[in-house]
Amino acid sequence: MRYKLTIAYDGTDFHGWQKQHPPDADVPLRTVQQVVEDVIKHVVREDVTLLGASRTDSGVHARGQIGAFSCWTMIPTERMLMAINSRLPGDVRITNVDPIDESFNPISDCTSKGYRYNIKHGCMDNITAPLFDRNYVYWTRYVLDVAAMLTAAQLIIGKHDFTSFTRLHHGRDSTVRTVLACEVVATDAHHCHIDVSGTGFLYNMVRIIAGTLLEVGKGKIDAHTIPKILEARDRTAAGPTLPPEGLCLMWVRYDNGPDPSVQDGA
Amino acid sequence: MRYKLTIAYDGTDFHGWQKQHPPDADVPLRTVQQVVEDVIKHVVREDVTLLGASRTDSGVHARGQIGAFSCWTMIPTERMLMAINSRLPGDVRITNVDPIDESFNPISDCTSKGYRYNIKHGCMDNITAPLFDRNYVYWTRYVLDVAAMLTAAQLIIGKHDFTSFTRLHHGRDSTVRTVLACEVVATDAHHCHIDVSGTGFLYNMVRIIAGTLLEVGKGKIDAHTIPKILEARDRTAAGPTLPPEGLCLMWVRYDNGPDPSVQDGA
Repeated sequence: MRYKLTIAYDGTDFHGWQKQHPPDADVPLRTVQQVVEDVIKHVVREDVTLLGASRTDSGVHARGQIGAFSCWTMIPTERMLMAINSRLPGDVRITNVDPIDESFNPISDCTSKGYRYNIKHGCMDNITAPLFDRNYVYWTRYVLDVAAMLTAAQLIIGKHDFTSFTRLHHGRDSTVRTVLACEVVATDAHHCHIDVSGTGFLYNMVRIIAGTLLEVGKGKIDAHTIPKILEARDRTAAGPTLPPEGLCLMWVRYDNGPDPSVQDGA
Repeated sequence: MRYKLTIAYDGTDFHGWQKQHPPDADVPLRTVQQVVEDVIKHVVREDVTLLGASRTDSGVHARGQIGAFSCWTMIPTERMLMAINSRLPGDVRITNVDPIDESFNPISDCTSKGYRYNIKHGCMDNITAPLFDRNYVYWTRYVLDVAAMLTAAQLIIGKHDFTSFTRLHHGRDSTVRTVLACEVVATDAHHCHIDVSGTGFLYNMVRIIAGTLLEVGKGKIDAHTIPKILEARDRTAAGPTLPPEGLCLMWVRYDNGPDPSVQDGA
């Protein structure tokens, strides 16, 4: 039986999604894949491999990560959901379990993914800097021009060579990707988020898009130079890579239907 | 020179406010008083003692804790604020510094304090349980009757013997306290908070008031039995002590003016 899991996690205390066991370490690093896989093994009482749709970095959060594993054990999905969740630590949770075709591969079958980058801005000093939400937003003293950021965001949409928006030595064959949507939403005078969705992403791509839109918001990059930055195919033409804590993997899609809704509770 | 500090902190990773050095430990426990006092000593380059208005427990948060210390060093308050904050870890912050009379004592001069207890309710399972806010709210599967809780809350207001609402062996001479206000506010269908203010509180008093109102919200205690619970002068007559993570010290007052506003940014 193969199962598809929807996974939400607070990435603060994880070394990212992917299992890692440094040669000089006695135990593997605390990663989401490791923690969830270990619990599944315990619940189904057999060895399993948990594959994830997105290898989120250390400190990056998820509300709708997708994982999949196969096992011989037959457990009703509702009972499996409860059994896994009751054994998981407080910073990771399964929000859905579905039986799925044995051929399902969460990485190669993915049709699109959506990320959100959260920003707090206009904090004049470290008095008004984030405290309770410090692990979930990027903050800047600048008051951002959200309208200019939105103008720039619209110019990122489409099929482009995103060499300017990925880390050097990214190790991918092609740097052409399609961004389906890129929105900047102001939720109040001091908070905005950038929603980016696409059929696939290069390494650090969302965090560099966020960093570039941030520079536009500060007035340091003109919104209309986005096409030139793309054409440059040069990492130094774009803005900085923003830190991981502002980033959250919101959803992963496997069809062409409407955007999957995200659990509000997580 | 004596200074009055307003302090905000995320209590999750602190062993409460008060300094503690267990006899068998090499170093003191990580407490807010210890961390802030150490930074002040470094900034003013002399030995100081930081006194706090409320000895919050391990895991309890604060947006408006008040502290005070004296030193010989003359530093403009704005510069002192920045110097302290730039050396503090991310989970504690000074939001205000004021020079104050040498006689100022943050404990005995206090005229009233306000606490908030945050509750998430009607989470049917551990899927919708808090994830990103798990350290800041108490959660329950029950759907709470907030109107009944508010009725009960109003009956707690006033000068009463709060023996039923404190831990046994509390070590205080008198158990009579005055609750000035007790409100229950529903912010949406799944979140409410209890705001309690008073001239002084017994040990665990706010967390037991919250636990008793919770039982009222569940329909396990009738709202109108609050006077009987007070009259019983018996800890077992009231509801449970709710856990620390839902509690936040909002403000401390030293006069009879209007409620001090709380920094929204914290």
